[in-house]
Amino acid sequence: MPTQLDAVLAHADKNIDASLKRLFELIRIPSISTDPAYAEDCQRAAEWLTTELRELGFDASVRPTEGRPMVVGHDPKEDGPHVLFYGHYDVQPVDPVALWDTPPFEPVMKQAPNGDTHIVARGASDDKGQLMTFVEACRAWKAVTGGLPIRVSMLFEGEEEAGSKSLGPFLDQTADELKADIALVCDSDMWDNKHPAITTMLRGLVGQEVEITCANADLHSGMFGNAARNPLQVLSEIIASLRTPDGGVAVAGFYHGVTDLPADVKAQWDRLPFESDGFLRNVGLSIPAGEKGRTIQEQVWARPTCEINGIIGGYTGEGFKTVIPSKASAKISFRLVAGQDPVKIREAFQAHVRARVPKDCHVSFKDHGASPAVAMPFDGDFMQRALKALTEEWGAEAAIAATGGSIPVVGDFKRRLGMDALLVGFARLDNRIHSPNEKYDLSSFRHGIRSWVRILGAFAGA
Amino acid sequence: MPTQLDAVLAHADKNIDASLKRLFELIRIPSISTDPAYAEDCQRAAEWLTTELRELGFDASVRPTEGRPMVVGHDPKEDGPHVLFYGHYDVQPVDPVALWDTPPFEPVMKQAPNGDTHIVARGASDDKGQLMTFVEACRAWKAVTGGLPIRVSMLFEGEEEAGSKSLGPFLDQTADELKADIALVCDSDMWDNKHPAITTMLRGLVGQEVEITCANADLHSGMFGNAARNPLQVLSEIIASLRTPDGGVAVAGFYHGVTDLPADVKAQWDRLPFESDGFLRNVGLSIPAGEKGRTIQEQVWARPTCEINGIIGGYTGEGFKTVIPSKASAKISFRLVAGQDPVKIREAFQAHVRARVPKDCHVSFKDHGASPAVAMPFDGDFMQRALKALTEEWGAEAAIAATGGSIPVVGDFKRRLGMDALLVGFARLDNRIHSPNEKYDLSSFRHGIRSWVRILGAFAGA
Repeated sequence: MPTQLDAVLAHADKNIDASLKRLFELIRIPSISTDPAYAEDCQRAAEWLTTELRELGFDASVRPTEGRPMVVGHDPKEDGPHVLFYGHYDVQPVDPVALWDTPPFEPVMKQAPNGDTHIVARGASDDKGQLMTFVEACRAWKAVTGGLPIRVSMLFEGEEEAGSKSLGPFLDQTADELKADIALVCDSDMWDNKHPAITTMLRGLVGQEVEITCANADLHSGMFGNAARNPLQVLSEIIASLRTPDGGVAVAGFYHGVTDLPADVKAQWDRLPFESDGFLRNVGLSIPAGEKGRTIQEQVWARPTCEINGIIGGYTGEGFKTVIPSKASAKISFRLVAGQDPVKIREAFQAHVRARVPKDCHVSFKDHGASPAVAMPFDGDFMQRALKALTEEWGAEAAIAATGGSIPVVGDFKRRLGMDALLVGFARLDNRIHSPNEKYDLSSFRHGIRSWVRILGAFAGA
Repeated sequence: MPTQLDAVLAHADKNIDASLKRLFELIRIPSISTDPAYAEDCQRAAEWLTTELRELGFDASVRPTEGRPMVVGHDPKEDGPHVLFYGHYDVQPVDPVALWDTPPFEPVMKQAPNGDTHIVARGASDDKGQLMTFVEACRAWKAVTGGLPIRVSMLFEGEEEAGSKSLGPFLDQTADELKADIALVCDSDMWDNKHPAITTMLRGLVGQEVEITCANADLHSGMFGNAARNPLQVLSEIIASLRTPDGGVAVAGFYHGVTDLPADVKAQWDRLPFESDGFLRNVGLSIPAGEKGRTIQEQVWARPTCEINGIIGGYTGEGFKTVIPSKASAKISFRLVAGQDPVKIREAFQAHVRARVPKDCHVSFKDHGASPAVAMPFDGDFMQRALKALTEEWGAEAAIAATGGSIPVVGDFKRRLGMDALLVGFARLDNRIHSPNEKYDLSSFRHGIRSWVRILGAFAGA
């Protein structure tokens, strides 16, 4: 005899066309957050979502901010564990438009050569397709059982692609309202096309601009070359000094507090298929550049690094100019892992640089953000239930994964609301997010809805 | 009773305002050679000079080349020693324009706090102000005596600041026409503000552009940081490896063939006042950067070096972008002294770089000219007469000097036409050539004209 869960899953499947129709409606609103020309579209997207939530019985509203509005909704059910679901309704710009095969805001279903069906549009994956998997899962529960199995609130942001400037202040103002037992974030990838994943580790980021000034004006390298200090040489020597010969970071104390992966997680990473070669080969490389003795997965997910993001100085136009410039500058960032303090890393880096600037030269720094890494506990009850639900839905082991990039909202939930987050996403690595012809697999959408149906049930002990 | 020479000198002094007016006309033509956008202005500058020479009775013409045109003029007088005067009408780019106090191509006379008068503009010193001292000296001779005391030809180049690509082929084609008893080149400095100088040693130059390519596209540093090779890191490590800890150049074989200064020249350099401290202090520095155990004079005039003239790669705009760029590039030049072969230095540098590029990355080179150092004989009749004339004009010992910069034409005169050159220039060390607010002292211009008047007379035995 079919269980209640089976009935909800069957309902979701049966109504997939209606779910797609609603997703397409949302996608058609060009809610690009970084370009003020689309501010009204962002407002429309927020209103559309509010209307949807209200139809589902949520107490939902558009909440204005200094930037694009938030959407907050609470289901009337007040018992059971409380989750806050997060997604973002804003999307990336679409240029270069000429590279799109179909208009970016007119979603189409396309058959891929391998038989998969793709939903192609800006936001199809990031993050409209992903956030709607959760909304549709709630709809299925309500349609079949008349309510949700646990207590659910939702938060939709409209500035994720534009730096999330309003998010921190908004969370501070609404802390009492939004703090739940756990946050659910749907903005991440599967392990691969077969294995679902919960992302548990996100690297932090410290951005730093460095400017070295030597002479008080640009000099002729014929007249002064040899005797006058060259800031490009000084800067290059400093950058070279940031790395150890074995690919590590040479800043004193950089690895203080950094620990190795738990053995079971490392074992899973080594066990599950990961195309190490393909990862670099796809971008034209073959030799891992980071710490020797670490797998590529460890290097990009679980190890901190220092990257030079830009350098400029001297004459950089066509032809040649024999100048010794007065100044040279670099943008440098550190990706951090759990245990590293961004403030201390910044200080250690600045001390490292200062010790290498000649006494008659000058260095100045400009700070560009500092956020610690975020690591979720691997063992908690929510995590274990979600892993089990995902494994059941996909018929393949759910992975404890990580991401090398930062997802600031997760750090904000942790620091401002004291709330952990489960990052469960159904995007694939080839979704072309931020690029032309962004797509979301129909399979991601369908199994995404079904995954959330199961997770909500699992949290209720269903 | 005043001599003929006195009358010519007096004429030059009396007509200094008209001379300045003509110089300003030439300066106002923005003849930047390295940027193709100013090709027409270079043509105009060449035509302007041709018109001037014709008005002075020269058989003058604009001579097209593959690049910017040459100007060649011959005075009809055919007896006496034959000199070929050389100058260049092209100028350096003006960026950063924001650092100029007045528009670079609108020459102004400015009173300096010490009472000196400066002509401020791009090209005021390098080389329009300097070359016009000779033209105006000829004008004074002609105005007073109806002709020149010796046989004079002139050659003005328009690509000196852009690598002089057309000069060699042009000299080969016109060798019979241009070969004279000696060349006079006015593109160098005084010893100091009091002592005139003839420059006898010029460093050579090898210019080289290096581009490192790692991944086949820009990468997200969150996704790839650590594992993907960063070309900015690779480039910085290569540049750092170019220097030894004691300030020397670390390229294998770089110092092969380099010898110490002759003892008598070293003695004169040590005897004449040279503000070692001031040389660096004037540009805001205090610690010589080059080889330890060498005086600043030796470092910049008699020792080879390697300078980084420009680096660019990654994100260099406002704010921050966490990118690992695909490419990074640098412009690097070597200043050479007598005994160094530019071709071998280029090869040694390229080998040094190739040995340091990771196997899955790529390096490409772009050559920007290669010229050996040139050393003139210290004795000889022209040299002795010129030293005497300069000493008389300035009331201070004329020095046998050297210059750290390259004046490729001097090497070309030697190799292609078998002709020595006297380098007599009136620029001061603080002229800010190649930099914002370039200036030429009115004193340099006036005594420069008078110096040439005397030298022309001295060569005629007057």
